[in-house]
Amino acid sequence: MCESRPAEPNVARSPDSPESVPPPIITLLTDFGAADVFVGSMKGVILAINPHAQIIDLTHDIPAHNIRAGAYLLHSASRHFPPDTIHVAVVDPGVGSERRPLLVTTRSYRFLAPDNGLLSYILASEPKAEVRELTAKQYFLGTVGSTFHGRDLFAPAAAWLSLDEPTDAFGPKIDNPVRFEVRQPQVDEGRVVGEVLHIDRFGNLITNISHTLLREAIGTAELLKVRVRIKNTDVQGLRRFYADAPPKTLAALINSDNLLELFCNQGRADKLVNATIGDQVEVKVA
Amino acid sequence: MCESRPAEPNVARSPDSPESVPPPIITLLTDFGAADVFVGSMKGVILAINPHAQIIDLTHDIPAHNIRAGAYLLHSASRHFPPDTIHVAVVDPGVGSERRPLLVTTRSYRFLAPDNGLLSYILASEPKAEVRELTAKQYFLGTVGSTFHGRDLFAPAAAWLSLDEPTDAFGPKIDNPVRFEVRQPQVDEGRVVGEVLHIDRFGNLITNISHTLLREAIGTAELLKVRVRIKNTDVQGLRRFYADAPPKTLAALINSDNLLELFCNQGRADKLVNATIGDQVEVKVA
Amino acid sequence: MCESRPAEPNVARSPDSPESVPPPIITLLTDFGAADVFVGSMKGVILAINPHAQIIDLTHDIPAHNIRAGAYLLHSASRHFPPDTIHVAVVDPGVGSERRPLLVTTRSYRFLAPDNGLLSYILASEPKAEVRELTAKQYFLGTVGSTFHGRDLFAPAAAWLSLDEPTDAFGPKIDNPVRFEVRQPQVDEGRVVGEVLHIDRFGNLITNISHTLLREAIGTAELLKVRVRIKNTDVQGLRRFYADAPPKTLAALINSDNLLELFCNQGRADKLVNATIGDQVEVKVA
Repeated sequence: MCESRPAEPNVARSPDSPESVPPPIITLLTDFGAADVFVGSMKGVILAINPHAQIIDLTHDIPAHNIRAGAYLLHSASRHFPPDTIHVAVVDPGVGSERRPLLVTTRSYRFLAPDNGLLSYILASEPKAEVRELTAKQYFLGTVGSTFHGRDLFAPAAAWLSLDEPTDAFGPKIDNPVRFEVRQPQVDEGRVVGEVLHIDRFGNLITNISHTLLREAIGTAELLKVRVRIKNTDVQGLRRFYADAPPKTLAALINSDNLLELFCNQGRADKLVNATIGDQVEVKVA
Repeated sequence: MCESRPAEPNVARSPDSPESVPPPIITLLTDFGAADVFVGSMKGVILAINPHAQIIDLTHDIPAHNIRAGAYLLHSASRHFPPDTIHVAVVDPGVGSERRPLLVTTRSYRFLAPDNGLLSYILASEPKAEVRELTAKQYFLGTVGSTFHGRDLFAPAAAWLSLDEPTDAFGPKIDNPVRFEVRQPQVDEGRVVGEVLHIDRFGNLITNISHTLLREAIGTAELLKVRVRIKNTDVQGLRRFYADAPPKTLAALINSDNLLELFCNQGRADKLVNATIGDQVEVKVA
Repeated sequence: MCESRPAEPNVARSPDSPESVPPPIITLLTDFGAADVFVGSMKGVILAINPHAQIIDLTHDIPAHNIRAGAYLLHSASRHFPPDTIHVAVVDPGVGSERRPLLVTTRSYRFLAPDNGLLSYILASEPKAEVRELTAKQYFLGTVGSTFHGRDLFAPAAAWLSLDEPTDAFGPKIDNPVRFEVRQPQVDEGRVVGEVLHIDRFGNLITNISHTLLREAIGTAELLKVRVRIKNTDVQGLRRFYADAPPKTLAALINSDNLLELFCNQGRADKLVNATIGDQVEVKVA
């Protein structure tokens, strides 16, 4: 998953704003849902500290307490943002306990999140990231309660970061952040075995098997002839796009994140084969 | 449906910002839902190209692949925005296939959308709109995949447009965009027959029968005495507002978009008569 | 519920924007849901009048027509925003009837809302607030329909306010806004009886019993030994945080808003005891 590379036509920019400084961007990803005002409260706290911040929602509908789902989607979306974006992620069943709050600095971004594995994909793809424990209380709200660190701790810390406070003022470096294992597909004699990473809103099954890995393991020439198996259902070959498959049947393609994806044209693949996250997916030459 | 005309009191503007250039506005309407990060990724791509853009969500809960619902809501909401707003609409079951991506320029706005009928209402109300096929790859992401043109193609093209790139640089004019038929109500001897266009979050049934048409067909004096029929249920007369009708019964009024609307005070009209989009609605003098 | 007090480290601000005027903030709280374009249309109207406005969503998923739920969440979220924020709240079953539109000015904010009780908590906590009826039609859209004052009246009035129009130009002062009773817990010989105010997205039961009241009624020393009863289920003692309680059982703590909250670690308290808003909660020394 490479970073997005926007095209850069050789043309002049808008004459209206050639030198103005863009607003700092703070993104939010949580499991707080849309029906409460947890997120609205976080935004208020951020804007009370830095009213110039531009706050962008990634999603607030991570299934409640599902750290793995949050970790996957955070990694998937965050990498498209411009350098210096501050990403705040809060899926935090351990809020108020001894679990530490983190500030992680990667080559392009800073991430604020509870130390519970939510940054596992980020840390796996950024081995040189600097990891700090957030301890500097002057960057938190005056009183930090025990149930809502999104508002009392992560939001104000993000806002102060966006005002160019230096990261080393926020707390000491640590070298043992919590991570869950990011499982890699197994390759064995032209056979690749991976799993379902994510099921999207359309019922598509996104796997952890990349196009790059398939080309290496199976070869570009053979790739269109593969057989993909999930839950005793076989799919022959890869489609070029969704509408390229017959309706109402399981099919597979390489998606726009360069990952193998199972789908059902005009239907839902997850319902068709009763799939869930973690289900095994096998690819081999037919 | 006329454009919104904000009142303009004869008073001075804020002394703080009399001449600053407002940020360019880009709106997004999709069927991507809130639980995934499709939308968050699009926003990242836009801001990576133009960090000054102000991105506004119209809705992301168009029913999956429902082009007609998206077309109606896009037309309904887009017309309230200030001139030069860029509207991006993505309901795109044919993504990756031969279906073209479009850039449509109307008197006030630019629209980016797949060529599948999603702009039917816009094109019906803007007969002189300029329609182009988006072909200029320098305005797309470096690699355009086959499943997510919202992120790889429409978002970056919108961001470049917001930087004042000229529309003719984005691709050639075409004259045959896909449109579905925008059905007009039938008028016949003081009787108007239309249909349900949209069912809103409260269960209200919005029809394609306008106040203007009713006045012409039936007369202003007779209008309060009409009989409205849907699915063998009759409603006598028009109410002035929702709370003007007895509770839990079907009633009708002219809504704030100047359209005939069936509703149920303290209930849901759609449940009451088991209505769906496309159901016939008949109005005549009682 | 005190106002948020962001920490203020003794450090320099960003050199990039030391003097620029931040954009005016307008928040929106409605029961319009995410699937329609009611909210998108309001944003268009606001930006057509003041394209510099920064519009922030509090929530749009107040249960349809539920004024009490909206009133609670508006009070809970609005107080975190910076001074001069304009808060627009629309839960408005009486739209189009004789119910008045209001403009309420508190020490820190201005609120626009229908006169139906939606500002009850705000008015209860701000006894000196100035209350005006919105009557100045030059601040409304040219035509105000009878079904959507959020778009035709409240949105444009908020946008004009954000351009520094004086509040007294919007309409006359009134002294009889509609309020529902904000019920206070009863204290009686070391026993406190309150009720469930709100059930959040995780199924937690937020009560109207504050930490301050409990300390006064029961004493700090005794507080950890209380017995909390709801619907014939007893909870012994208070936990420090969610993960401090055994899984799948009802427990209680003081939450980050300083309110007594019943919860279920790794489960939903509302399901566990079949609780609804308004249910009685009793606290006494065990």
